[in-house]
Amino acid sequence: MRTVLIVAQSLDGFITQHDRPGTDWTSLADKKWFRSCLAPFDASVMGRVTYEVSRDYILAHLSPHRSRVVMTQSPDLFQHDAQPPTLEFSAETAPQLVQRLSTMGRKHCAILGGTKVHDAFFAAGLVDEVWTTLEPRVFGAGTPLTSIPHDVSLRLESHERLPDSDSVLLRYTVVR
Amino acid sequence: MRTVLIVAQSLDGFITQHDRPGTDWTSLADKKWFRSCLAPFDASVMGRVTYEVSRDYILAHLSPHRSRVVMTQSPDLFQHDAQPPTLEFSAETAPQLVQRLSTMGRKHCAILGGTKVHDAFFAAGLVDEVWTTLEPRVFGAGTPLTSIPHDVSLRLESHERLPDSDSVLLRYTVVR
Repeated sequence: MRTVLIVAQSLDGFITQHDRPGTDWTSLADKKWFRSCLAPFDASVMGRVTYEVSRDYILAHLSPHRSRVVMTQSPDLFQHDAQPPTLEFSAETAPQLVQRLSTMGRKHCAILGGTKVHDAFFAAGLVDEVWTTLEPRVFGAGTPLTSIPHDVSLRLESHERLPDSDSVLLRYTVVR
Repeated sequence: MRTVLIVAQSLDGFITQHDRPGTDWTSLADKKWFRSCLAPFDASVMGRVTYEVSRDYILAHLSPHRSRVVMTQSPDLFQHDAQPPTLEFSAETAPQLVQRLSTMGRKHCAILGGTKVHDAFFAAGLVDEVWTTLEPRVFGAGTPLTSIPHDVSLRLESHERLPDSDSVLLRYTVVR
């Protein structure tokens, strides 16, 4: 199973604007691109905070074509939302999740944040690609892309300006 | 006087690899580009740490065509290196420096880091352009591009892959 970490970030590597949760600050161009880019993925993984910020949208857009897994230490707290295998809540580690989704026959998994999920997948060497929308902002503070030391090398596959924006979409493959 | 902040950073916004000072980790493509891009600048500003890391190179490449100013709280400690106006050490603030270099007739000033210098110029609204080399690395820790909250909006002027590399040169104008 191929894993792609998909994220929008400020130039200086923050995924939130200061201490405001969510992605209200990202460009319309990124929001459009993000929705469309997810279509080919038959699995996605996100953290609890990311789920809670986008809960209404996610619940309104569930599809049997994609397994969504929310990583949380307390999956029992979310059993009212769970609709396995379309929407699951799990305390599995990143390697356990990748193993299980692969066994289910899933081929393309989007890793959708936030920081702890990025850390878990990078630390386990389980990120195959990184697709970053670089938003034209400098924040100096906020939620970082990752929060523990890594040393990941990337190969640049493409760079493009998103339509009618100052945002750059960068696609990388992780070098192993 | 036009000011351009010129920096190489990891994808996640760090200007050093973890706690190792200096820019040994940046690509050869960036090092080549950086040397060449400085040619048109008749002034440059950097912090004490940046100066100390690059001192030998700087002293070997002084030129009367460029005023170099090192911002430090203790300019007296560097009087053995000073060669005004080619190389100065100053406790002036960013606005004071910009004012003085402008009065000297300087037209193009490169802001060369590190973090405190970036913070001082951004906070004073004295950055006109940002030229960033985005290196294909994720570090998760290191010296950040800036260290205090800002909210800077940028207009993307260009994006290009540096020759024979996975590095992307991004040029932005600061939106005021």
